[in-house]
Amino acid sequence: MRALPDHIDGYGPVRPFAGAFANLGSATRAGTRVQSARPGADKVLPSLRAAIEACGLRDGATVSFHHHLRNGDDVVRAVMAEIAGLGLRDIRVAASSLFPVHAPLVEHIRSGVVTGIVTAYMSGPVAEAVARGELATPAVLQTHGGRARAIEAGEVHVDAAFVAAPTADAYGNINGVHGRSACGTLGYPMTDVRYADRVVAVTDNLVPYPACPIDIGQDEVDFVVPVASIGDPSLIVSGTTRATTKPEGLAIAAQAAQVIAASGLLREDFSFQTGAGGISLATASALREIMAARGVVGSFAAGGITGTIVEMFRAGLFRSLFNVQCFDLEAVASYRDDPAHQAMSASMYANPHNRGAVVNRLDAMILGAAEVDLGFDVNVTLGADGVILGGSGGHADTAAGAKLAIVTTQLSARTHPKIVERVASVTTPGETVDVVVTEAGIAVNPRRADLRDRLAEAGLNLVPIEELQAKARRLTEGAPVAERAEGRIVAVSEYRDGTVIDVVRGVG
Amino acid sequence: MRALPDHIDGYGPVRPFAGAFANLGSATRAGTRVQSARPGADKVLPSLRAAIEACGLRDGATVSFHHHLRNGDDVVRAVMAEIAGLGLRDIRVAASSLFPVHAPLVEHIRSGVVTGIVTAYMSGPVAEAVARGELATPAVLQTHGGRARAIEAGEVHVDAAFVAAPTADAYGNINGVHGRSACGTLGYPMTDVRYADRVVAVTDNLVPYPACPIDIGQDEVDFVVPVASIGDPSLIVSGTTRATTKPEGLAIAAQAAQVIAASGLLREDFSFQTGAGGISLATASALREIMAARGVVGSFAAGGITGTIVEMFRAGLFRSLFNVQCFDLEAVASYRDDPAHQAMSASMYANPHNRGAVVNRLDAMILGAAEVDLGFDVNVTLGADGVILGGSGGHADTAAGAKLAIVTTQLSARTHPKIVERVASVTTPGETVDVVVTEAGIAVNPRRADLRDRLAEAGLNLVPIEELQAKARRLTEGAPVAERAEGRIVAVSEYRDGTVIDVVRGVG
Repeated sequence: MRALPDHIDGYGPVRPFAGAFANLGSATRAGTRVQSARPGADKVLPSLRAAIEACGLRDGATVSFHHHLRNGDDVVRAVMAEIAGLGLRDIRVAASSLFPVHAPLVEHIRSGVVTGIVTAYMSGPVAEAVARGELATPAVLQTHGGRARAIEAGEVHVDAAFVAAPTADAYGNINGVHGRSACGTLGYPMTDVRYADRVVAVTDNLVPYPACPIDIGQDEVDFVVPVASIGDPSLIVSGTTRATTKPEGLAIAAQAAQVIAASGLLREDFSFQTGAGGISLATASALREIMAARGVVGSFAAGGITGTIVEMFRAGLFRSLFNVQCFDLEAVASYRDDPAHQAMSASMYANPHNRGAVVNRLDAMILGAAEVDLGFDVNVTLGADGVILGGSGGHADTAAGAKLAIVTTQLSARTHPKIVERVASVTTPGETVDVVVTEAGIAVNPRRADLRDRLAEAGLNLVPIEELQAKARRLTEGAPVAERAEGRIVAVSEYRDGTVIDVVRGVG
Repeated sequence: MRALPDHIDGYGPVRPFAGAFANLGSATRAGTRVQSARPGADKVLPSLRAAIEACGLRDGATVSFHHHLRNGDDVVRAVMAEIAGLGLRDIRVAASSLFPVHAPLVEHIRSGVVTGIVTAYMSGPVAEAVARGELATPAVLQTHGGRARAIEAGEVHVDAAFVAAPTADAYGNINGVHGRSACGTLGYPMTDVRYADRVVAVTDNLVPYPACPIDIGQDEVDFVVPVASIGDPSLIVSGTTRATTKPEGLAIAAQAAQVIAASGLLREDFSFQTGAGGISLATASALREIMAARGVVGSFAAGGITGTIVEMFRAGLFRSLFNVQCFDLEAVASYRDDPAHQAMSASMYANPHNRGAVVNRLDAMILGAAEVDLGFDVNVTLGADGVILGGSGGHADTAAGAKLAIVTTQLSARTHPKIVERVASVTTPGETVDVVVTEAGIAVNPRRADLRDRLAEAGLNLVPIEELQAKARRLTEGAPVAERAEGRIVAVSEYRDGTVIDVVRGVG
């Protein structure tokens, strides 16, 4: 457990992390306020400025955004430019994720238009500005499920949600499968629109009523703003979405697939999730061969969905897909065309405080890591340079839900070790991580003696995590040791239940 | 306006109806309580009794049901038998509708197990028992949209919602399109499950996880109870779902279609809803000919959906369907197979206090009536014998939302007039009714001078409502005049905004 202050300026009292499953039980979903539609009233407004005014936004407001357009999104920029133009100050941006494309926020941070950020992932100039301490209050880093939970609980009250809508009609029905900016499912805003005071659909494809199929319904949308473009379609689907071709990565992937094969979980109704990283996708490919050879038909694959997973689904290896977000155009097309390829909201995906999230049904999850330590704690928040490089996204959620959470990583990256004594920042607690697979062997969490025995029986190369750490240290000997920053707290990492699992200190 | 008491015993203070659009504006949706699922926990329980106990139901609890299984439903009976068997008392039944099949409730009313009923429609033995004053408190008759509103507002707090699930998996995903009891969309419970403390799926078709397509998701369901049968499939789809073949009915239907044709609304993007009554379906058929002849493609048809409407959709006369409930198996099959045939929740359908219900987008609505009066008020609540024969369902909702609300009715039924000076009970206020079409002519609400001019120009047979009333009186001269019952208040009719529009007094 990390030592944490009782109170953090600009954040408030700290409820310390107390175990991955410590705060289940009865949970509250907040009451909300809705402005009733008058029959015959029109929802279309001529500009974002008109919509911001119609929402009644004031200084100190919280505005929410979603990241299905990823590094092609232009809605955050456009909305925040209008908010700044209207002279609003002290705005909190509750975005499901922030990418390099959101660099224009840095100017708003410096000018005091934006003084708070709540997000599940941030990379690029905004993350760098936060790490330098430029934001007036600590950024709050949540998990995807934790963000849904916080919004539902009223901990993050959204004054206005702006939904980047690839297709919408004039009465606010929205889908993500048609239009030049088609991005597939809209799992993240599905949660926001139910709890925000006001909801604005921003679309570059206004179609005749109704915009079928409907991903978000008219009953949740106040205003519709047609714009020329919500983003750059060529960048909407971005990020690593190809399997690695490097021999070391492929070897790790093959071992990870063997871990699944030997775990006892790879049987009828098997379920699986992986991220879009190169080793993760290579693991999926390796697993595909084993599933086909064994004749296993899985119940579902989940997550952000890639073409790799769609191909496994279409090959009959999974009966269904649960999709919170599409990572590529193959996933978009499949979501549009395949009835068993189902959308899920961020809450249904990963919220620990509902009646049963999809992560709870996962057998095997493949996770990446910036660092893993001797306690199996994983860091995907801080880079070796002390700059925020991401955050949990669904990392901590899926680790907690899955029966088998496998971290795949090389021992070292460039000059710094990735298996360390103690991670620079805890994103995902070790108690929810079962196995670490490296090119030098497989470490099983000592909590999982049952699993260790199965893997040993299958002849896999099991080594203590301490041995991996020692090898990683030797590989990187002589490299400068990263010092933990000692500046003021610039970000607070919340576990999925809203407790604080770690803090990030400034590098400035 | 009817004279209403300030307070009704067993109901509470009365907010009197103050106009169809008097209470729009800011509305509140209640906070809710959810029991978090622990990863790995099982939701399947061996019996309804175990589920009732797991829900922690106590004396005085409110339990909710939906009516998609219509007169074939066996879930209300089975659940209430177990509740009675457990010795619970003072239970309020919040069913979206009650039918003759629910006769076993009468015994529970007499024994004090059930002391309250909230519903949008009731017919058969339960309605008769209520009319006789057997229920301890006045029954509350809502509209479909008003019921969704009341649940969302927390006015009707549901302790446990029981969802009759034609198909479910062990983790609570539900659909209505597969299984022996397939009933199509599940628009009514979609609202209940979001606001109930506990949700139980009762299914006779437990399938491997996940039950795709998902109409209600696992994140909203606490428990799953497999049972041998949730109802009689041959009665699940029941009610009048064939067009009338009687000459008088056909003549009325033809006139109603002509009203739409002359209204100025029958153009590109036209939208339409009709009930499942014989004249209503005949009107749809007559309208179909006109649409085809004019080459009009409508945007959507909505409502409870019948095969008649599905045929119009498949013939290309409507681009889409919005479906809260299927009335026949053709509708079930179409909802399963046609992507532009979309489900809508009761709230999205008709709730006046959300950001825009589908009824708000209706051009033309065809309504039935037990009585219409000189103020165009409509009664579909009370029969000539003073017994409750139904209630609003979506009647008042669609009348309020549609640009053109047309009541079709014969002048008289058997020995009593249907056009009267003053209806025995107001279900739908006259200010929301535009036209009454009878075999003796068409009366236009004086509020709609614009419409009257259009219809006159088209050469339709317009007559004052007073003339229709006089003719109806003459047709039924000598028949006994129904006396308005003067007993205690046995039911309270709420308008869709929760105000009281009328009361029903006992016949006992």
